[in-house]
Amino acid sequence: MMVENKNERPVILVTNDDGITAPGIASLVEAVKDLGDVIVVAPDKPQSGMGHAITIGVPLRLNKVDDIIDGVTSYQTSGTPVDCVKLAVDKILHRKPDICLSGINHGANHSINVIYSGTMSAAMEASIEGIPSVGFSLLDFRFEADFTASKFFVRKIVESLLKAPKNVKHLLLNVNIPAVPLELMNGIKVCKQAYAKYDEDFDERQDPHGKKYYWLTGEFVNFDTSEDTDVWALEHNYVSVVPVQFDLTNYELKKQLEQNWDIL
Amino acid sequence: MMVENKNERPVILVTNDDGITAPGIASLVEAVKDLGDVIVVAPDKPQSGMGHAITIGVPLRLNKVDDIIDGVTSYQTSGTPVDCVKLAVDKILHRKPDICLSGINHGANHSINVIYSGTMSAAMEASIEGIPSVGFSLLDFRFEADFTASKFFVRKIVESLLKAPKNVKHLLLNVNIPAVPLELMNGIKVCKQAYAKYDEDFDERQDPHGKKYYWLTGEFVNFDTSEDTDVWALEHNYVSVVPVQFDLTNYELKKQLEQNWDIL
Repeated sequence: MMVENKNERPVILVTNDDGITAPGIASLVEAVKDLGDVIVVAPDKPQSGMGHAITIGVPLRLNKVDDIIDGVTSYQTSGTPVDCVKLAVDKILHRKPDICLSGINHGANHSINVIYSGTMSAAMEASIEGIPSVGFSLLDFRFEADFTASKFFVRKIVESLLKAPKNVKHLLLNVNIPAVPLELMNGIKVCKQAYAKYDEDFDERQDPHGKKYYWLTGEFVNFDTSEDTDVWALEHNYVSVVPVQFDLTNYELKKQLEQNWDIL
Repeated sequence: MMVENKNERPVILVTNDDGITAPGIASLVEAVKDLGDVIVVAPDKPQSGMGHAITIGVPLRLNKVDDIIDGVTSYQTSGTPVDCVKLAVDKILHRKPDICLSGINHGANHSINVIYSGTMSAAMEASIEGIPSVGFSLLDFRFEADFTASKFFVRKIVESLLKAPKNVKHLLLNVNIPAVPLELMNGIKVCKQAYAKYDEDFDERQDPHGKKYYWLTGEFVNFDTSEDTDVWALEHNYVSVVPVQFDLTNYELKKQLEQNWDIL
């Protein structure tokens, strides 16, 4: 659904939240490099957990940094993942790319993580702009994670989207990939976002000057045992694909309030 | 729907994204102070546009700062609005508050702004925790904004929610208030989030060392002309209330993909 001009190769914008030097973004580029003209615009440092943050209090830097990712035009910015997408469209491409790919994130972005994730927020920003977009995450947060199977599925999904007709207005997918070898994978499963959250447990410490500080830690708790969730799919060695939207209206509650709220 | 124990006053957690010294948070506290035991946990500096960012790469500071807001126990943190809610529940209250109120934001958080807003992300974080929560915003970003009418509507809404039965699992409201005097207001309207976005236009400048930098600017564009949106309501002097959810699954697209996607 992306090819604007059938005579041209599609323009593929690649970003992430782990920063431009993370192995995950290099793997993403490798997987799709020959499917179009790839351009990388990514943060110059890790920006995990940035959610949909934008930079408004300080100005942004944008620098061309070829040779970080082999054979691909690349830029790094001082901004958040969402800033990267805005800068790419407005200051570098001067047009909308045909597709925006974010990741491959080092670590899971299933269930409630979609809310905190810089990877998914970059993809969502592109989707708000009407650019079909996909965030990819591997369930292995290590620097030395093995992206072999991920690359296979990234390519399969992107190839399919580039061929599809332009009939979805705001195509936005949250793809998570289990950290198992390709031969153990059961395929791709379209899912809903599991209802899960983190039980916070701040790690309280004392600095050398005797003042307290806190590290955010937490335990993941899944409350959603239904079989059509992303958490279930990943536990059963499926690649989970959750279609995501940026209309956050709770229409059910809207109806309830319209009917019953005494202060209206 | 919030009173956990009928013999106790409700615990009201107040936060914001403009920082603990912003007039908007003092107005919010003033409006609800006698409705329960109010505790303020807010950022020590402006955090507008932080979206659902959390702080994971650096530790957090948390300091008691009584006397900033008259007569109310207050804490400031070095973190984002979402961090404030997590710290309040885990390190200060050691329980869930009965309601969480965020704001009053200096500036609009209607339509697509809900995605970028630190004010709304703090409220959403509380909602994920199962805490009923409301984000309030006034359509006037000036420091010297007049919160008189806002206080009237904040009180009306919070009073009503504290009286209501506990029948909504994740109550989360995005309330925007037009910047007009009380006598010109037409009341409260429950709405959906308008489909709107920003057309970015980065302001390119040169620093004293000859290097470029960019300020994010942009023009708000509303594509949604239907009369049940928050943008319409605000333009017609209604206080807009959009019920918000954190399940971002696009169920319509999920069904389409399940039926038609050839790679499944």
